[in-house]
Amino acid sequence: MADVDFFFYYGSTYTYLSVMRAEAAAEKAGIELRWRPFNVRAIMIEQDNIPFRTKPVKLAYMWRDLERRARGYGIEWRAVPPYPIDPDGLANRVGLVAAEEGWCPGYTRVAYRAWFLDGQALGAAGTVEPILEGLGQDPKRVIEAADSARTRALFERETQSARDLGIFGSPTFVVGEEIFWGDDRLEDALEWAKSAQP
Amino acid sequence: MADVDFFFYYGSTYTYLSVMRAEAAAEKAGIELRWRPFNVRAIMIEQDNIPFRTKPVKLAYMWRDLERRARGYGIEWRAVPPYPIDPDGLANRVGLVAAEEGWCPGYTRVAYRAWFLDGQALGAAGTVEPILEGLGQDPKRVIEAADSARTRALFERETQSARDLGIFGSPTFVVGEEIFWGDDRLEDALEWAKSAQP
Repeated sequence: MADVDFFFYYGSTYTYLSVMRAEAAAEKAGIELRWRPFNVRAIMIEQDNIPFRTKPVKLAYMWRDLERRARGYGIEWRAVPPYPIDPDGLANRVGLVAAEEGWCPGYTRVAYRAWFLDGQALGAAGTVEPILEGLGQDPKRVIEAADSARTRALFERETQSARDLGIFGSPTFVVGEEIFWGDDRLEDALEWAKSAQP
Repeated sequence: MADVDFFFYYGSTYTYLSVMRAEAAAEKAGIELRWRPFNVRAIMIEQDNIPFRTKPVKLAYMWRDLERRARGYGIEWRAVPPYPIDPDGLANRVGLVAAEEGWCPGYTRVAYRAWFLDGQALGAAGTVEPILEGLGQDPKRVIEAADSARTRALFERETQSARDLGIFGSPTFVVGEEIFWGDDRLEDALEWAKSAQP
């Protein structure tokens, strides 16, 4: 039995499915899930890995596939949300602060619901504050922490950890040095973790 | 209940899994599977969709993921095979002849085994003839048919059918106008076909 690291990026579309279902799936499997926001956008640009933005046919498929899978899992779906989002990485760095302080899963679910169900472009002016207020967090304090040099450096280090593991997309589930890319590999990762030597 | 069209390309790596398991899965589901070789390479070049060749990190992951999934399905795996293959499309056009004449599934399994298990770069000189002989087909006749203007035009038409459906990768499973990309969507496609109105 091993833990699973859940590397993800606020702005990744398929990550919506994992955000809404990974915790319950891990709990059912008796696996500890560590939520680790990282800058997949930087890695994808480095690797010239642009799967959707410049590829309209694949992009159209992605939304249709995501809708079908959401419905299949009983995850709410309304319409194609704004895309891309979070150009300055604020929603991501807030996620990192939340992870350090122990309230990342709740923040992430609320943030993804705001994005996918209310059509809010996360990171745009005024989108993060009400999410934090709704969670009982002080927006001013959290955003100052998210914008601090310390958090920015930590975000870089987490991104480097992802890079070192060979991660190139979000979500990625990690068991030791074994990586599983995509929401559709969540179950494989949990199975791998269950059979891993401690 | 509807049929499922299995669009695929000899040279696609994940297609190995579908070639080895799709027919049994479809039969179990009571679904008719139509094997339809097409030129995904032409479509990917048109769309600037180069997922692996220029992306070593993603390429390395792909081989590892493919090996894990093959083992999970009980599909034989030896080593990373030659890649890419079939530069002139001969293995593909032979597949199209086989599809017209009703022996495509058998040819495709033998061809993929030659590629993945014996390390043969399909389409290279001398790789296709022994495969055809092993199937009781006359290599000279089949290769002439595969190289004919008629078969080349049919390959173009099948590729255009794929393009019209919004297909951008191999394997893709099609139910009516609904497309499912990837070996890992095979079960979704079969479920969709089972619940489709006739």
